[in-house]
Order: sequence, then structure tokens, then C-alpha cells
Amino acid sequence: MFRTVLAGALAAVVMGAGMTAQAEVVSPEDQIKLRKAGYSYMSWNMGKIKAQVIDQSVAYDQGQILAAARTLDAIANSGMGALYGPGTDRQVGAQQTRVKPEMFDNFPDVAQLSAGLAAATGKLVDAAEADDRAALRTAFAEVGQSCKACHDKYRQR
Amino acid sequence: MFRTVLAGALAAVVMGAGMTAQAEVVSPEDQIKLRKAGYSYMSWNMGKIKAQVIDQSVAYDQGQILAAARTLDAIANSGMGALYGPGTDRQVGAQQTRVKPEMFDNFPDVAQLSAGLAAATGKLVDAAEADDRAALRTAFAEVGQSCKACHDKYRQR
Repeated sequence: MFRTVLAGALAAVVMGAGMTAQAEVVSPEDQIKLRKAGYSYMSWNMGKIKAQVIDQSVAYDQGQILAAARTLDAIANSGMGALYGPGTDRQVGAQQTRVKPEMFDNFPDVAQLSAGLAAATGKLVDAAEADDRAALRTAFAEVGQSCKACHDKYRQR
Repeated sequence: MFRTVLAGALAAVVMGAGMTAQAEVVSPEDQIKLRKAGYSYMSWNMGKIKAQVIDQSVAYDQGQILAAARTLDAIANSGMGALYGPGTDRQVGAQQTRVKPEMFDNFPDVAQLSAGLAAATGKLVDAAEADDRAALRTAFAEVGQSCKACHDKYRQR
């Protein structure tokens, strides 16, 4: 519990700090490219857990599930807020984005959603370390709901 | 030491297992997209450590450095070998790749290079957790050398 609360708090702090410390060194085009890269990589790792734990279409492998959970947790805590700098609310160069412009007026809400995601990915790591498939299913659903909560509010269809 | 050896061994195992377990569910085009996403995200996180620890052009923040190190370590251990399936040795659809085709004839060597990377990112996490900047510089250099070792052999210019 402490761990997940800490992860959430850390995410909020890193996100806040990142927005000022990193924004100047990465171009708006690269910020969009990198945040899309992070989400794509998360999606791939969610897919692995879905296949092995939910759909059971692929044999369960604790090592792979733990690696996937750690990747999700690390990216969720990696300060993606730094990739939503000024000028990244619309397409830049070749980089299209589905972000809704109103996200940029609601950073406190986004930080809260981000902390929720980090709390959920922390539970996913705990469940993977414990090799507890019931807990994995619960945590997977919670991570998915955290993704969806932000998409519903701040991503265009 | 045990931790980094274990991380390396795990990377090799996950990589090997991933190649058979995951290859069928992700299209060749998406495999290329996803591996490029993973490397881009690693590059961004290397850049944060470089700015704060090597160049010192951005104020040092242990929380950010630890988050970056954990992201690098998680991606290095995420079974990227699964993203080098059949048909991904050349451009597929919109996804270009700089991989040299001979990489696909040398998977044991690639697994060794991958284990070297995971050992180095493990040391980076250890150094970040210890808040030890000298150890961070050493580990950062080792991660960079691991990246370069693979690029020199298997990436086109």
C-alpha cells in the first residue's frame, strides 16, 4: 500500500518537475513522438499481460509478466508530463496527436489521473512479483480503467 | 552483482521465450514500430541522465534520475527480441528500419549484447538508488557502450 501511494506521489512530483526541467531540451515534435512511443510501448506490454492472464491465448510465463508489469510501472513513473510542453497541443511537423487541447488547461486533473495510473501499475508489479493471477487480473483491470479514464477525457476519438 | 547477473540472464531468457510466444500476435509492421518506440523512449531517458549527471546543464534530481534508470532497465528487460520476428528485417508498410539483415543470423550474439545492456542498466538503477553520482557516471558510460556495441554491429548508418 505504501509502495503504491508512494508511486502515485512520485509520479505527480516527477511530472510536475519534469514539465519545467525537461521542456526546453526536447522539441515539440519530439515530445509528441516520444509520448506516443511511450504509450505504444505500454500498449504492447498490456497486450502481453492480456494474452497470458486474461485471454489465456498464450502460455502464462511469470518472467514475461513481471517484465511487462515493470515496464508499465516504469513508463507510468517516467515523467511523461514533460512531453506535454507548449506547442504540443496540435500536429507538429510529421507528428500528429490526438490530444484534446483542453488537457493543457487541466494539468492538476491530469496529474491526478497520472497518479492513479502509477498506483495501478504498482499493484500490477506487486501481483506479478507474488505470481498471484487473481491479483494480476484485478490490477490489469485497474490499469486499463486508468488508461481509459484519461482517454475518455483528453483523447480525441 | 547477483542482481545484474540475474537481470542479464532474465533478459536472455525473456528474449528467447518472447521470440516464440509473442511473434504471432504482433504484425511485422507493428514489431518494427514498437521496437523503434522502445529505443526512442530509452534515448529520451538517457538524455535526461546525460543532461543532469554528465553535462550538468539541468539541475540534478534524484527522483527523475531513478525514474529514468528504472525505465531504461525495464525496457532493456522487456523482451524486445520478440520484436525481431520474421519479415522485420526490412521496411514494412510505413515502418522503415535501420537493422542490418545479418542481425537475424546472429541471435545468440544479439542475446549476449542484450544481456550486457541489461547488466549495465541494472547498475544504473543501483547507482540511482544509492544517489551515487560517480557510480551513475560509470554506469551511464557502460549503458552507452552497450547501445553502441549493438549499433556498430547491427544498425545501418
